[in-house]
Amino acid sequence: MRIAIGNLKEATHPDTLKAAFAELVSMFIFVFPSEGCAIALANMMTSDGAATPGGGFIAAAISHAFSLFVAVSVSANISGGHVNPAVTFGAFLGGHISLFKTILYWIAQLLGSVTALFLLKIATGGLDTSSYALRGGETPWNAIIFMIVMTFQLVYTVYATTIDPKSGDMECIAPISIGFVVGANTLGGGGLYGAAMNPAMAFGQAVDSWKWNSQWIYWFGPFVGAAIAALVYEAIFISSRNAHVQLP
Amino acid sequence: MRIAIGNLKEATHPDTLKAAFAELVSMFIFVFPSEGCAIALANMMTSDGAATPGGGFIAAAISHAFSLFVAVSVSANISGGHVNPAVTFGAFLGGHISLFKTILYWIAQLLGSVTALFLLKIATGGLDTSSYALRGGETPWNAIIFMIVMTFQLVYTVYATTIDPKSGDMECIAPISIGFVVGANTLGGGGLYGAAMNPAMAFGQAVDSWKWNSQWIYWFGPFVGAAIAALVYEAIFISSRNAHVQLP
Amino acid sequence: MRIAIGNLKEATHPDTLKAAFAELVSMFIFVFPSEGCAIALANMMTSDGAATPGGGFIAAAISHAFSLFVAVSVSANISGGHVNPAVTFGAFLGGHISLFKTILYWIAQLLGSVTALFLLKIATGGLDTSSYALRGGETPWNAIIFMIVMTFQLVYTVYATTIDPKSGDMECIAPISIGFVVGANTLGGGGLYGAAMNPAMAFGQAVDSWKWNSQWIYWFGPFVGAAIAALVYEAIFISSRNAHVQLP
Amino acid sequence: MRIAIGNLKEATHPDTLKAAFAELVSMFIFVFPSEGCAIALANMMTSDGAATPGGGFIAAAISHAFSLFVAVSVSANISGGHVNPAVTFGAFLGGHISLFKTILYWIAQLLGSVTALFLLKIATGGLDTSSYALRGGETPWNAIIFMIVMTFQLVYTVYATTIDPKSGDMECIAPISIGFVVGANTLGGGGLYGAAMNPAMAFGQAVDSWKWNSQWIYWFGPFVGAAIAALVYEAIFISSRNAHVQLP
Repeated sequence: MRIAIGNLKEATHPDTLKAAFAELVSMFIFVFPSEGCAIALANMMTSDGAATPGGGFIAAAISHAFSLFVAVSVSANISGGHVNPAVTFGAFLGGHISLFKTILYWIAQLLGSVTALFLLKIATGGLDTSSYALRGGETPWNAIIFMIVMTFQLVYTVYATTIDPKSGDMECIAPISIGFVVGANTLGGGGLYGAAMNPAMAFGQAVDSWKWNSQWIYWFGPFVGAAIAALVYEAIFISSRNAHVQLP
Repeated sequence: MRIAIGNLKEATHPDTLKAAFAELVSMFIFVFPSEGCAIALANMMTSDGAATPGGGFIAAAISHAFSLFVAVSVSANISGGHVNPAVTFGAFLGGHISLFKTILYWIAQLLGSVTALFLLKIATGGLDTSSYALRGGETPWNAIIFMIVMTFQLVYTVYATTIDPKSGDMECIAPISIGFVVGANTLGGGGLYGAAMNPAMAFGQAVDSWKWNSQWIYWFGPFVGAAIAALVYEAIFISSRNAHVQLP
Repeated sequence: MRIAIGNLKEATHPDTLKAAFAELVSMFIFVFPSEGCAIALANMMTSDGAATPGGGFIAAAISHAFSLFVAVSVSANISGGHVNPAVTFGAFLGGHISLFKTILYWIAQLLGSVTALFLLKIATGGLDTSSYALRGGETPWNAIIFMIVMTFQLVYTVYATTIDPKSGDMECIAPISIGFVVGANTLGGGGLYGAAMNPAMAFGQAVDSWKWNSQWIYWFGPFVGAAIAALVYEAIFISSRNAHVQLP
Repeated sequence: MRIAIGNLKEATHPDTLKAAFAELVSMFIFVFPSEGCAIALANMMTSDGAATPGGGFIAAAISHAFSLFVAVSVSANISGGHVNPAVTFGAFLGGHISLFKTILYWIAQLLGSVTALFLLKIATGGLDTSSYALRGGETPWNAIIFMIVMTFQLVYTVYATTIDPKSGDMECIAPISIGFVVGANTLGGGGLYGAAMNPAMAFGQAVDSWKWNSQWIYWFGPFVGAAIAALVYEAIFISSRNAHVQLP
């Protein structure tokens, strides 16, 4: 591991602050349509013109996939396009971002999520935002395993398509890969939705509904998954390569 | 702000007229399938083979996302691929297009939208096109906040992926980002549909149905959102960069 | 117009034959999943586990969009990725393909479509393939206007993203644009489906069902739309550019 | 044919082992969301909030298309992004991968699939994974013809967009083409699902359910389709080109 601490000077450099701002806006671009779609579906389903669960399932996957792809594409060249505290944690473990900058990114991401949910509340005239909830018959550990696996896949994808210097021409479509791995897992995770890979979205929901009792799950699962992906990818595809190719 | 006025000579230059024509065709490519889909769904839903609202919701998002992506991709290298008066307004506020050219683009965009709805009317044998309407229990201000937020996200995406000189390899997938941010927000905005970010589509609907009473909403909301996005992006990511890197 | 006739020698050159073969396979890659999806939906809808029309509508759009995108991407560098007699006709009118090669492409495209439907018949144990049919209350001219408009949009997209030398970095995503403009119009054209832009698909259906009475519509509409797109794009964006930039 | 055998030294080289590991993870990224989606749909359909088959059909296509696209994009520059024993077999027949490496890839792909299904079982608290099954009224040969055709299209796409040295700028979007050809055929193949092109997914299902009686079908069909695609593409587009362009 090559963890970097950084310093206060770097954390207050204009470029760092701009990157943090880009993360804030990108999180906002991800959360607003994803949560807006969830609210619309929840209201359709209870009215007489009921949406089918099958349809809602697909709408959730598409709104998460499309909006995350856009959120990554607009910040890729400014902040690296993390748009997820777990992704930032994964990049930190690999030494690709300093501790100071990591904390700044986290604050920005949480603010972006809260802002999106706040504006949704106003725009819908006070409708409740959906919160993650465990399905009947599930223990927290079922959900946690899902989150570990799904976030592993997300952070592995981020490493392979953007951080790895060998990513090459895959970088051009990296934001699509990152958005769509979340879209696929929104379908794969069933009732858990894609935000179960994103602690910032869960945090925004908790601020909105002021329910914090299972919040730890939405941080613990994704951070464990991100850590495994970062350490595995670093160990196998990046560090060992450096070991072989000794620079002068 | 670096607003440019331009002059009549520029506005009548062949390249400017070609760009305006490209905007007209692109708007036509965006509006025809999006509105055609809305008409098809409206007719399916009232017949016995009723479409589910959930399905219609997704079909609306996909038709908007796919057709706007195509519309941007075919005009990106000719006119910049605005396909939206609010996007042109945002580019104007940042000084990236002159006032004369802006007005020419707006005329072309409105003509493209009207042409699409006119041909749809003929092709469907006179079926009514759908018009935006406020949902029950909404004040205009709920819709306006939605439009401001959604158009902010659209114009921010246009700036980040096409106007920003640092957009780099994101330019290749910029039309997909622009189409999909509208697709995601069509799901996010629930019953408002993606065209609520596009005054030209609302204008075409008003010409078709000759109902103008809430038309101002579909111009006010998107223009405010576009202005915020343009000014924020310029101030933070473009102007300040120029301030730091003094050219000789 | 710069129509090219070509000669028998060019038409029998190995590269020309390879290009024709690539068109055959690409048409096969487009028609098999699109028609397979239509058959699956038709059978689902009549069984007790009925598919909703809304869902079928989206499935049709996605199968057409995805399979045409793939079909174009696998032949783009070999044959130009036409995968449609109307697109080949549009390229011919602009002088980008000779008459001899055009005829060869058409034969290959028709063979590819017939092969796909023949294999579908075997693979499904003899299920009927769906055929285009006019909806109740429509005159042929409604359908023809739809086809003209939708094929205009398709061929305009082909010109803007592949034939135009200024297409630049849009070429990379051109197959996606071409696939998705058909996907959007499959939703926009309602009950007409995306193949209403493709005479070769209609031809395959007619061979399969041996119903030829409205076959002319599926050739007339798309060819008129393709011609308008080719002539407009050439006149405005290609020819005039050459007129201005005189090469030495 | 230019089959390569390779040797044990190559098969145990770090780069070969890394490539095999990348195949394992990619198969895991493909199978987990695709199967997770199938499980979620199966459970939705039997509960009172029943998913419509039309919706489930689309969800299956999207989960397969998105997850395979991601799986290919994260391994494209490391292992070639096969993510399918039949694709590896096709590459082997064309001489693009040695026999030793082929066997290593197969083992990795099977392990990746089994791991995904094992983790799904734990994460869902023991829900049964869906297995491929023949639809009523089908003989195995109907399914086999479907698989041959669909895998032919998949391997032809892999050859045209990644292996062919002339693939050029299509390489950038190759993972999307590969994912979406499977997505389209998931819709095209009706009840067969996209994994009917992937023996490793069928193997994982068989390990999970310990039903092996029709396992041979899911290997025979795809391998025949892959062989035809590889031999046809090699013969027509690669070998003959080499014959013409004699290198000094």
